[in-house]
Amino acid sequence: MSSLPASPVSPPEPGALYLAEIREQPAALRRLLAQRSEFARVAEAARGTNLVRIVGHGSSDNAAAFGVYGFALLPGLTAMRDSISLTVYYGAKLDFRGSTVIALSQSGQTPDVLEYVTRARSAGAFTIGITNHEDSDLARAADALLPLAAGDELAVAATKTYSNTLAALALFAAELAGRGDEVASQLETVAEQQERQIPLLEQAVASIAVPFASVGRMFVIGRGPEFATAREIALKLLETCQIAAEPLTATDLAHGPIAALDHFFPVWAVATDDGSLDVVVEAAARVRAAGATLIASGPAADAIADAQFRLPVPTPPAPLLAPLLSVVAGQLFAGAVARAKGLDPDKPRGLSKVTLAL
Amino acid sequence: MSSLPASPVSPPEPGALYLAEIREQPAALRRLLAQRSEFARVAEAARGTNLVRIVGHGSSDNAAAFGVYGFALLPGLTAMRDSISLTVYYGAKLDFRGSTVIALSQSGQTPDVLEYVTRARSAGAFTIGITNHEDSDLARAADALLPLAAGDELAVAATKTYSNTLAALALFAAELAGRGDEVASQLETVAEQQERQIPLLEQAVASIAVPFASVGRMFVIGRGPEFATAREIALKLLETCQIAAEPLTATDLAHGPIAALDHFFPVWAVATDDGSLDVVVEAAARVRAAGATLIASGPAADAIADAQFRLPVPTPPAPLLAPLLSVVAGQLFAGAVARAKGLDPDKPRGLSKVTLAL
Repeated sequence: MSSLPASPVSPPEPGALYLAEIREQPAALRRLLAQRSEFARVAEAARGTNLVRIVGHGSSDNAAAFGVYGFALLPGLTAMRDSISLTVYYGAKLDFRGSTVIALSQSGQTPDVLEYVTRARSAGAFTIGITNHEDSDLARAADALLPLAAGDELAVAATKTYSNTLAALALFAAELAGRGDEVASQLETVAEQQERQIPLLEQAVASIAVPFASVGRMFVIGRGPEFATAREIALKLLETCQIAAEPLTATDLAHGPIAALDHFFPVWAVATDDGSLDVVVEAAARVRAAGATLIASGPAADAIADAQFRLPVPTPPAPLLAPLLSVVAGQLFAGAVARAKGLDPDKPRGLSKVTLAL
Repeated sequence: MSSLPASPVSPPEPGALYLAEIREQPAALRRLLAQRSEFARVAEAARGTNLVRIVGHGSSDNAAAFGVYGFALLPGLTAMRDSISLTVYYGAKLDFRGSTVIALSQSGQTPDVLEYVTRARSAGAFTIGITNHEDSDLARAADALLPLAAGDELAVAATKTYSNTLAALALFAAELAGRGDEVASQLETVAEQQERQIPLLEQAVASIAVPFASVGRMFVIGRGPEFATAREIALKLLETCQIAAEPLTATDLAHGPIAALDHFFPVWAVATDDGSLDVVVEAAARVRAAGATLIASGPAADAIADAQFRLPVPTPPAPLLAPLLSVVAGQLFAGAVARAKGLDPDKPRGLSKVTLAL
């Protein structure tokens, strides 16, 4: 009898995984929020900490830059992106008593992060691993585990694990501040905002990606919590588009790098309506005065006069959470530029998903 | 009667000030060492600190990255590059009691650094200004002043104030550790090493600058104390040569940026014989495997196999002090490339010596 033909196995479209995982971010965020009781429990165990030390590489280190703001602005704690090298390679003998260590590793396998956690724990720190793999070595090395709950991430360039790391840091900081209900509810709203915004941003980036296919270098500027966004967008452009993109705070720009700008050196500015908006607006004006092409993004993209391109996102329920929305514009832009260049964001040259190199 | 003709006033050669100030670094370092009693006095006042918070922009922020190592490895204190934004723009209410703040500003006039110092001081920090201008606002805002004693710096691109900031941080950390004599003597040796090395490096960079005149982008990698060197060399290349140069730790490189490398994307590696040498050597091998041109510098430049160019410097009396020697190669290289491109390191486009912008 007749049978249906076997469905043809077509090779996956370049960047299909990357795009699917960007689109999945609202769902991933909701999966994280479903784990909230874990965050409350671990926050209880961390009470009394006087210094938060966050470590991680790549996108995790970018998320750590956000965490510094989350801990300062929610529970009022000093937080730092700690040096892994000092403890692991230089044998520094630091006083870890009273410190909470937060180790960020999507894979839970990053070797020097594991070694740092082991040493910090034996020197008196309370250590927490935040990872997407609950059965990983990091889960065994740390005192406590917080799940990213992003679901398997298959594209090499991280997207949903990055945004869930931001959310995990915000949620944990909120629990420490006794404001878990408030921030969890705000994160629910952010998931809805992402859901509505992603299709609009996909259309917007499609129309501007092609002119950027020939760009070799860019700056990405932001300040405050959005400096993490600037770092992460620059990393996406580097790894998926082979663009030499450097993240700078709006203030760094004035202290040297502005001298390098010209017509062939576009600048991406992330603008949010918070305490640093004036500084970012002023830096953007200097960029335009230097003749560089300007892309404005973020909830306050419209405040950047003279931008040739705009990728605005909604205003979040709290300014601290803007990076969860702002980064999506950069993720999608990088994906669109990569496609315009014939590159595959799912498998960037020379990278693997779990970085085991030192 | 006859009189001698007035001597002709020729316009200064582009980069003449920058080069003179690089050459002056050994003398500037000795002037700093002559101020040692001030460092001992202020260290006495800072005893009992449990957290060192270092702030500054541009080259000062690069020096702060070195300071994190100096305080951890000499007195065993946790030190961080603190966020100016959090305190100045976001109004975070952090606990500054027990903290020593070290504010780095060549001019002593950087507005948000001043504001940070004022707020940190009123919140309980012991505040120290390190500046080249003892009569500046920073000197008035802080509890204590440490002089850079570098002499007036006239080129816009900082050189001798950067290296003296490194030395000031090392000397202050040493005094806190009760090791002032030892480190002051090591710094004397470094001044002698710089003196012998500078003419050799000037010759070496002259022969390799021209091929780099057409380079648009570079990475500069280092780890540990030499990450500060990577940052500062990248900043010199940005501001004097208009090269998009991004500093990365040797480990950062593997977490994404390696994907951007190709034949048109040279990498500068700073190698020192300390706890991070293996990591830097491994990263350099990945750079070569990606087909990128490699420049090796630092005291362990010879450990980098396959480098097309080498700019070695002497081995310092202590590995921690290597950045004072390694940075000179980058300063001179940037000056030579700028000249090859017809640019003037004394007056980079769009910059002024005192950055008053936010």
